Amino acid sequence: MNSTTTIKNGQWIYLRHPKGVVGPEHYELRHEELSTSLSAGEVLVQSQYISVDPYMRINQSLKPTYNELPHALNTVQSAGVVARVLASSVKHLQEGDWVEGMIGWQTHARVHHSALRKLDPTMAPVSTALGVLGMPGRTAWFGLTESGRPHAGEVVVVSGAAGAVGSLVAQFAKLHGCKVLGIAGGKAKCDWLCDTLGLDWTIDYKAHPDAASLSAEIKKLTGGVDVYFDNVGGMITDAIIPLINRRARIVICGTISQYSGGLDNPELGPRFLHHMLYQRATIQGMLARDYVHRMDEMFNIVGPMVKAGKIKFEETVVHGFEQLPATLNSLFTGDHRGKLLVEV
Amino acid sequence: MNSTTTIKNGQWIYLRHPKGVVGPEHYELRHEELSTSLSAGEVLVQSQYISVDPYMRINQSLKPTYNELPHALNTVQSAGVVARVLASSVKHLQEGDWVEGMIGWQTHARVHHSALRKLDPTMAPVSTALGVLGMPGRTAWFGLTESGRPHAGEVVVVSGAAGAVGSLVAQFAKLHGCKVLGIAGGKAKCDWLCDTLGLDWTIDYKAHPDAASLSAEIKKLTGGVDVYFDNVGGMITDAIIPLINRRARIVICGTISQYSGGLDNPELGPRFLHHMLYQRATIQGMLARDYVHRMDEMFNIVGPMVKAGKIKFEETVVHGFEQLPATLNSLFTGDHRGKLLVEV
Repeated sequence: MNSTTTIKNGQWIYLRHPKGVVGPEHYELRHEELSTSLSAGEVLVQSQYISVDPYMRINQSLKPTYNELPHALNTVQSAGVVARVLASSVKHLQEGDWVEGMIGWQTHARVHHSALRKLDPTMAPVSTALGVLGMPGRTAWFGLTESGRPHAGEVVVVSGAAGAVGSLVAQFAKLHGCKVLGIAGGKAKCDWLCDTLGLDWTIDYKAHPDAASLSAEIKKLTGGVDVYFDNVGGMITDAIIPLINRRARIVICGTISQYSGGLDNPELGPRFLHHMLYQRATIQGMLARDYVHRMDEMFNIVGPMVKAGKIKFEETVVHGFEQLPATLNSLFTGDHRGKLLVEV
Repeated sequence: MNSTTTIKNGQWIYLRHPKGVVGPEHYELRHEELSTSLSAGEVLVQSQYISVDPYMRINQSLKPTYNELPHALNTVQSAGVVARVLASSVKHLQEGDWVEGMIGWQTHARVHHSALRKLDPTMAPVSTALGVLGMPGRTAWFGLTESGRPHAGEVVVVSGAAGAVGSLVAQFAKLHGCKVLGIAGGKAKCDWLCDTLGLDWTIDYKAHPDAASLSAEIKKLTGGVDVYFDNVGGMITDAIIPLINRRARIVICGTISQYSGGLDNPELGPRFLHHMLYQRATIQGMLARDYVHRMDEMFNIVGPMVKAGKIKFEETVVHGFEQLPATLNSLFTGDHRGKLLVEV
């Protein structure tokens, strides 16, 4: 390659703020001619697997979130990507190597090497760098162990249990010797949670008309809740909080039921803080970004589990770069299991 | 005294469950002839100061709280009392000694010595055994230090700041080098918080029509909140949660705005758990009973502070045993400062 060469780069541009559920109408597909000329330290990469994650909708909230400002309009949708190196200006990354980084919804990019993590394809399929051995795995592992602090014999309830994070939390909790209830939408997901992941109990929340009905079922199954790992918020959380045991730990990892508008104008729910007092319980919010510097701890423990087949890392792979906005939309409405990915 | 002697004992009997605010209509004053004959280990006491506390209304909730069952009807209202020993069957308590225990709303009682704590009247006025050197002090000290974990330079916000617990939390936070905002109802309380307790800021929440207005004022004064010590819940908590800083600690010590009916049928409030995630913050409920075994730690630190005049322990003393139910009622509606007591 030389400085005059270019490559055609497809990019999904975040164009409009969604008021409700995000979808294709908020994006536009553009193409640019990307110069392949590398500055010192740069690497040219081609995207293979592109992530869609619930947090993307948080970043589109008009109110301050964990970021001061929302995702900028008229820019490439930010996202984690597994890519191959096409050309490199640094020695430790060579053509053909696999890398992971926040490359965004685009087919190609020139990236500074410091923003890329080199992958070992012999450890696990490279797509896991966006799942069990990536951000969702880090979230699940540290959210459960640091905030949830589970102990053998305790009852752990996971909402969004069939999702990328929830399905890992549920398995990690089983490995800690806990009794695990997974809550998910639909019989197919629940069957998978019991039959494949080996959870003790599952509940299809869609079979319950309200929080009281759901709460009665959770109480009947578990007797009470020691750790609640919350990915969804809303009615499911309403059903669980009255059931917490003394010194229960509630991990706020996500509140996906609120993302499609509720973050800008919060919906109402029952006040529940007296339950925290009754049970001297703890609610703690956590974000994967706070544990980036501890990825090696997770790799040392979870890596061998994955290699030994002790952890099921389900992936739902959608094919085609053009499917990205529709796939993001399906996170909030769809029936995927485990980590949802788009393969370019 | 001999086994045939009796003494006239006045007792306030908890007679009816209150649906809203508790008051005299839920109690009945009865008198009994109390035998003064002491079994082995018993002590006969005469009440001097009798406590009224917000938790009494929690115990009247029809739903399970920190206790499985509500306060039994047709029994003496349970309460902490400072009393004098009239007669004793044990050596370490003698006639004239001061004691504190859960004697209830009655003028006299025979109590097993193990349920009594002997007081040292040279350390501080004996009434403080129901305040700064008793349950409220324990709540304030351990709630702030163990759950709040304040550090010099941080912003601590206390709701119910003029109350028995709040006024101590605010002073303890000042001693930790924190900047302290006290929220209370009415100008008189706020003036006292600033002028006498030396808080950095105060807000009269009654001057604000809604949570948005209150929130704007808190933000203007503090910039953001590191520790929120919550005694009240409801609108004031709604105003503060969006203002929490990263890794903020919220201590749920009380939710008095919800006690008069809201515990049985929770009112609605805005969902806020996404703020916990944004800020990786913690909510922790605490109860004074969990720190009973650590009273010596508090005495060692707070006792000398009290003796040295470093802590203002305001008391509002109502005179007359017959005033007990009305005084309890005034906890939820009145204008007392600091610890509210009835002197027999």
